[in-house]
Amino acid sequence: MLKLLRSAMAAAGADMFLIPTADPHGSEYPGEHYKVRRYFSGFTGSAGTLAVTADEAGLWTDGRYFLQAERELKGTGIDLYKTGQPGVPAIFDWIQDNLKGTLGVDFRTITAAEGNDLAERGIRLADYPDLIDSAWKDRPELSPAPAYSLSIEYTGRSTVDKLAAVREQMKQKGANACVLTALDDLAWLFNIRGEDVKYLPVALCYGIVEMDHAYLFMDEKKAAPIMDAMKAAGVELLPYNGIYSFIGKYGREDAVMASLGKLNYRLYLDLKGCGSIIDYDAISLMKAIKNEAELKYSRLSHIKDGVAVSRFIRWAKENAANGFTEMQAGDKIRELRYQQEGCIDESFSTICGYGPHGAIIHYSANEDTDIAVEPHGLLLVDSGGQYSGGTTDITRTIAMGPVKAEQKLGFTLVLEGMLALMDAKFPKGCAGYHLDAIARMPLWERGMDYNHGTGHGVGCMLSVHEGPNGFRWQKTARSDRAELCPGMITSDEPGIYVENEYGVRIENLVECVEEGNGFLGFRSLTFAPIDLDAVDVNVLTEKGKERLNRYHKEVYEKLSPLMTEDEREWLKTQTREI
Amino acid sequence: MLKLLRSAMAAAGADMFLIPTADPHGSEYPGEHYKVRRYFSGFTGSAGTLAVTADEAGLWTDGRYFLQAERELKGTGIDLYKTGQPGVPAIFDWIQDNLKGTLGVDFRTITAAEGNDLAERGIRLADYPDLIDSAWKDRPELSPAPAYSLSIEYTGRSTVDKLAAVREQMKQKGANACVLTALDDLAWLFNIRGEDVKYLPVALCYGIVEMDHAYLFMDEKKAAPIMDAMKAAGVELLPYNGIYSFIGKYGREDAVMASLGKLNYRLYLDLKGCGSIIDYDAISLMKAIKNEAELKYSRLSHIKDGVAVSRFIRWAKENAANGFTEMQAGDKIRELRYQQEGCIDESFSTICGYGPHGAIIHYSANEDTDIAVEPHGLLLVDSGGQYSGGTTDITRTIAMGPVKAEQKLGFTLVLEGMLALMDAKFPKGCAGYHLDAIARMPLWERGMDYNHGTGHGVGCMLSVHEGPNGFRWQKTARSDRAELCPGMITSDEPGIYVENEYGVRIENLVECVEEGNGFLGFRSLTFAPIDLDAVDVNVLTEKGKERLNRYHKEVYEKLSPLMTEDEREWLKTQTREI
Repeated sequence: MLKLLRSAMAAAGADMFLIPTADPHGSEYPGEHYKVRRYFSGFTGSAGTLAVTADEAGLWTDGRYFLQAERELKGTGIDLYKTGQPGVPAIFDWIQDNLKGTLGVDFRTITAAEGNDLAERGIRLADYPDLIDSAWKDRPELSPAPAYSLSIEYTGRSTVDKLAAVREQMKQKGANACVLTALDDLAWLFNIRGEDVKYLPVALCYGIVEMDHAYLFMDEKKAAPIMDAMKAAGVELLPYNGIYSFIGKYGREDAVMASLGKLNYRLYLDLKGCGSIIDYDAISLMKAIKNEAELKYSRLSHIKDGVAVSRFIRWAKENAANGFTEMQAGDKIRELRYQQEGCIDESFSTICGYGPHGAIIHYSANEDTDIAVEPHGLLLVDSGGQYSGGTTDITRTIAMGPVKAEQKLGFTLVLEGMLALMDAKFPKGCAGYHLDAIARMPLWERGMDYNHGTGHGVGCMLSVHEGPNGFRWQKTARSDRAELCPGMITSDEPGIYVENEYGVRIENLVECVEEGNGFLGFRSLTFAPIDLDAVDVNVLTEKGKERLNRYHKEVYEKLSPLMTEDEREWLKTQTREI
Repeated sequence: MLKLLRSAMAAAGADMFLIPTADPHGSEYPGEHYKVRRYFSGFTGSAGTLAVTADEAGLWTDGRYFLQAERELKGTGIDLYKTGQPGVPAIFDWIQDNLKGTLGVDFRTITAAEGNDLAERGIRLADYPDLIDSAWKDRPELSPAPAYSLSIEYTGRSTVDKLAAVREQMKQKGANACVLTALDDLAWLFNIRGEDVKYLPVALCYGIVEMDHAYLFMDEKKAAPIMDAMKAAGVELLPYNGIYSFIGKYGREDAVMASLGKLNYRLYLDLKGCGSIIDYDAISLMKAIKNEAELKYSRLSHIKDGVAVSRFIRWAKENAANGFTEMQAGDKIRELRYQQEGCIDESFSTICGYGPHGAIIHYSANEDTDIAVEPHGLLLVDSGGQYSGGTTDITRTIAMGPVKAEQKLGFTLVLEGMLALMDAKFPKGCAGYHLDAIARMPLWERGMDYNHGTGHGVGCMLSVHEGPNGFRWQKTARSDRAELCPGMITSDEPGIYVENEYGVRIENLVECVEEGNGFLGFRSLTFAPIDLDAVDVNVLTEKGKERLNRYHKEVYEKLSPLMTEDEREWLKTQTREI
């Protein structure tokens, strides 16, 4: 494969070629057409970047994939660079040190920020939009799946209304055009969904909003089912890649709004001739604040999902002695989820880690790592589904049999924090970073902590990770600084991870609600039992017990009507008062 | 008085004159020479701004002083503008609406920010540095009190060392000069103290640090006692007001560092011709992180102060039936504090509010408001002292007899939050705004809150309010955004205020300490009993009780060695385990 790439590079005059795992929309999981890195390297993991010269090639990936990458890269001549390991150069540093001449890249596959970073390092960049097409003979077509409209019953707000709201923001910021490239932003704005990206029910497209026009750039066949709806909303349809010539019309007299954290480098460069680029995200906050219709179907989806997860917990606990592997467990939860009416996909790749694997925060079981679950210790399962009108994300840590005292302590402290945050009441104006300490306090008190945010925003039949809300006290690249508003959905997922020993994470999604008198609070969207076999009742505070009992009572009330008599009996026990 | 001012204005050609309560250093409490607003208006409150035209005059002050200002302004022809009341214009708006011609002001008495604000409103400003001198015949001289050196025993760090640290920051920011005007910054840098400002033991001066020189601008007589120390530290002495001509030497080739939030408008304008003004506070963070010597004497000061406050609490509770007024209580606590060895001043004007007055956050009893304390309900006393080597600030709310259940509930929730924050453990990198929720949670849970920050930084024999640390989740003008570091001293003072009913505040100062393993925590500096008569033991959590008992045990251990046998008995009861 590399040979073909290298011939194409030589023909095109590129001394080095950079292939990230990315599509032109910044999607977390690119579709088949965009799995270029996988094709040329042979490495099938979900994250990695390939850099190729005439005589060298390197693949950068993270700790989740070291074993898998070693195996898959064997004999390819590609060197593995283990990101974050001591002595391993970061990829941009490596490029800087090894580049002689020009770095070729499809500018659509890097963000404006990455392009600027490379350019500021003095690296000579050249855009090769067609090089991959010429080197990859049987490259899959762009996903041809048709888009579809989501009815107002689910979206709760018309495209006409949403366009007006975007224009209102453009007016405030003095912009006469707004360029949109993130697929979930576009799906939200135009009330469309699709099947072009794994885990994210969206359709490939771009969009531009002007004061008097709105343009949707989408393949004509894909757009056929939404044509009428777009026409009715006054949206003009243009070819998918038409945006790259279209934006040439913006010049000195134009002020164009776009989110530079989302825009790809090609579009960014094409817009640089404008009077000004206004770096502003017109969609995120509006999308984050769910309306009544979105909340209604989110709540419904979560109850169905809770039934599937409860069935999985029961299956896991009852089959502990029979033996199953992490991957089999992942298959099982998928199967149970798909049995739920309205479930159209998983919302991300299930994390299913037994014992020490539970301590690997982004663990994803594969052939190299898969182990058998045994009838003792803890199994951590973080999974979610896409449903008609809702996206779920839930983590439960399950006692597979006897659990060590230290692990019960960790479980109980995590539970205490999760419940405390879920139950928090706070004045309007607070952001998630003001409240993160509430979830962490029980651990902090004992000098323990976890090295990830306590929560992220979650979409509505859209991305399982979306901004601008979150619970994260640390300053990070992500902008989780938004004030919490009623209607926002955020995950509440503290954890504790002891390397080579065990991991615990307990995650519910919560909906932000009005509490009156200037206060806000949360209501759980997620309903599934929390394994009492892993709770140390001597550690849980009185308040924690009261909260857990209250939550479990609600779990039973919400889920039991959808269960068989036999399942209800089981759930009754699982949610018993302590 | 106004007549004299108006003649001077007419002679000088100023159509309106603005007189804030301020000195050229931005001091919270200006000295006698700078009490210009008091002299011309007759209003003696601590906060207010006077604006005078040929035929009108207005005084703006806040709710603390409405009654007092009404009385004191009677017959002066000055209109009272009650800041924050509906329909009352803000002073800058009023100026904008009423000014015909030029607004005169001594530019040294407004900050760069205020001057810029006025200028941006299109107001024609003129600097009149001498107008007040000509209108105020018997104006007090600048305070002649001598400055004195604070020995290394107290400061823990030489001026030479501190100058090197300032220069290091100048180097990093590319500055070749650093202009310092805040009296507490200068006192810290040059290891000097003085008696020129009420509540703040500092000496009037300015300072400039260059890479090879350091200049202290101070009246020669005042500087006599520190002359040798300055010479030894390589600091050149120049006349107090010499800075205004001195800075004329900085030009296009100079980059001058100064904190624009502190710099007065005159100096700011004089520096505008420089190559650049680098807005950076070189002192605050260094000053906030107390060294071992500073901590040692702060701890000692707090123990002495705790003895005085304990005696006051005993006096108040034992004299409840005899009757005393709020002002008498304020006198009593001052008297008891001054009896402590090393006490040189109060650190601010005591807030002593009984019953409904406790609900007025910045209440200061005066002849108009003073009421008798009765043998029931709550007395809120917020006070502090300046000691050799330490500054204290403590609030106790005292049960004067029977206390209503609602008030006990408020007291107990405030106490629960105060103790929880004092006991917090958190990873390095957290700032106060990440932890504020910990103190507020017990109130938030019941839909209650208080409308002030939970804490502010405190100096060491310096200002009772200093940055950059604090506990304050709301974004305010104050910059309480600094990461907490070992050695910082911060107040922990939640409260609850029910208008026309009662107020509770409980305040300890805490020192930030290393807890090991990447964690930090707090230790109380303040030791004085918390009135158990106001605690509802059915509301306080088990953890709260444990924390209170632990604290009270320490109070007894620290204070009892400095007490008489009789006092010890009393303290034993006050700090009994519950």
